[in-house]
Amino acid sequence: MKRGKVFLVGAGPGDPKLITIRALEVLEEAEVVVYDRLVPADILKHAKKAELIYVGKSKGLHTIPQEIINEILLKEASKGKKVVRLKGGDPYVFGRGGEELIYLRERGIEVEYIPGITSAIAVPGVCDIPLTHRGFSSSLAIVTGHQDPTKDSSIRWAELSRAVDTLVILMGVGRIEKIVNEMRMDGETMVGIIEKGYSKEQRIITCKLKDLVETVKREKIKPPSIFVFGDVVKIYEMVR
Amino acid sequence: MKRGKVFLVGAGPGDPKLITIRALEVLEEAEVVVYDRLVPADILKHAKKAELIYVGKSKGLHTIPQEIINEILLKEASKGKKVVRLKGGDPYVFGRGGEELIYLRERGIEVEYIPGITSAIAVPGVCDIPLTHRGFSSSLAIVTGHQDPTKDSSIRWAELSRAVDTLVILMGVGRIEKIVNEMRMDGETMVGIIEKGYSKEQRIITCKLKDLVETVKREKIKPPSIFVFGDVVKIYEMVR
Repeated sequence: MKRGKVFLVGAGPGDPKLITIRALEVLEEAEVVVYDRLVPADILKHAKKAELIYVGKSKGLHTIPQEIINEILLKEASKGKKVVRLKGGDPYVFGRGGEELIYLRERGIEVEYIPGITSAIAVPGVCDIPLTHRGFSSSLAIVTGHQDPTKDSSIRWAELSRAVDTLVILMGVGRIEKIVNEMRMDGETMVGIIEKGYSKEQRIITCKLKDLVETVKREKIKPPSIFVFGDVVKIYEMVR
Repeated sequence: MKRGKVFLVGAGPGDPKLITIRALEVLEEAEVVVYDRLVPADILKHAKKAELIYVGKSKGLHTIPQEIINEILLKEASKGKKVVRLKGGDPYVFGRGGEELIYLRERGIEVEYIPGITSAIAVPGVCDIPLTHRGFSSSLAIVTGHQDPTKDSSIRWAELSRAVDTLVILMGVGRIEKIVNEMRMDGETMVGIIEKGYSKEQRIITCKLKDLVETVKREKIKPPSIFVFGDVVKIYEMVR
């Protein structure tokens, strides 16, 4: 009997050329591709032989629960198929790839991880904000802002904002005011806001932390956006 | 007059297939490639037309100072050449790419950043340690351990070890005892030590924080190694 396999593959930050050689190789051989909202359409074109299954969010509809995605992967792999689970960024950086890994391995399915470029690093980078820089930053943290900081969040915002030189917040647009209230950083700290990184509509706005909430409102910042806090944001101005 | 350009390119974590399509594209067109110790030899083969300049550490010799590397890049680009500055991992994650960006832009040289997969994320990942995981970790930090924590380090180890769920330390083998002494994490915290990630000699050892210093000595852990601290290390055991 032919044995199936699931590849947990990172599609990178949005530019179709920022996928790896290895990812392309498995996409070309895939029989099934289970993909998310953040995967660029030009990347899916490489999956010439595959059935494409979309499991991302649809307008006005709820997200497909993780349990259902797990079951789809198991079902297809159990048929002996080569299944690619394709996600924006990297599967293991806020991508829930670990849940799929555990579910499938517990059921005897072979799983291979193929890393992707995370937006958390590349999107600031392409805007001339290196997350580390001699004399500016020797530590970085990456967190999501999608949990309510006053309720169910396990993120220790006060400690976090004092502990690292560079802080990157993903998925924080909706809760940025609550997050800023929890943070204990100097109001003069520089912040870079990058909206729709690696798309044609990409834009970057910089401000001081004390002006962040007002700036987000005035500029009508929408998701997906990435916030970068720290001295490294000054480099964006320096190279202009 | 033909204008030169410098591409700051990430070569990824060591596997030659974990480089991006875009990186390969510029390597194939490059006239000069300035590369580091951590760049896989198989990746350099793609630079068919290029003069190769090695600027990494040599056995028994000192590292080439950053100022000299900057000057090489400027000199070659000023001749009108297409120059690729190729680094292991990502140029902006402990890669000193920011220094090259500033130096070159200040002198009117065009610079393009092409991100790479950082070992800090991919090496734990390929060992079945996702850096984030629902219920286990919603925040991660990446730091280097190459500064002496009792002297010149700007890393706030005590705050850092309390602030995030997952902590990744790169280049920490030589100073791990000093670092552990500065940390304020529970001694029961799980640690994964991954030596020579993405090479044939890759090995992973897990232990509790309280046993880390002894484990590093007993197992004769050598650089390059990556340390991962936090509950996500349990996933390595769970999927076995």
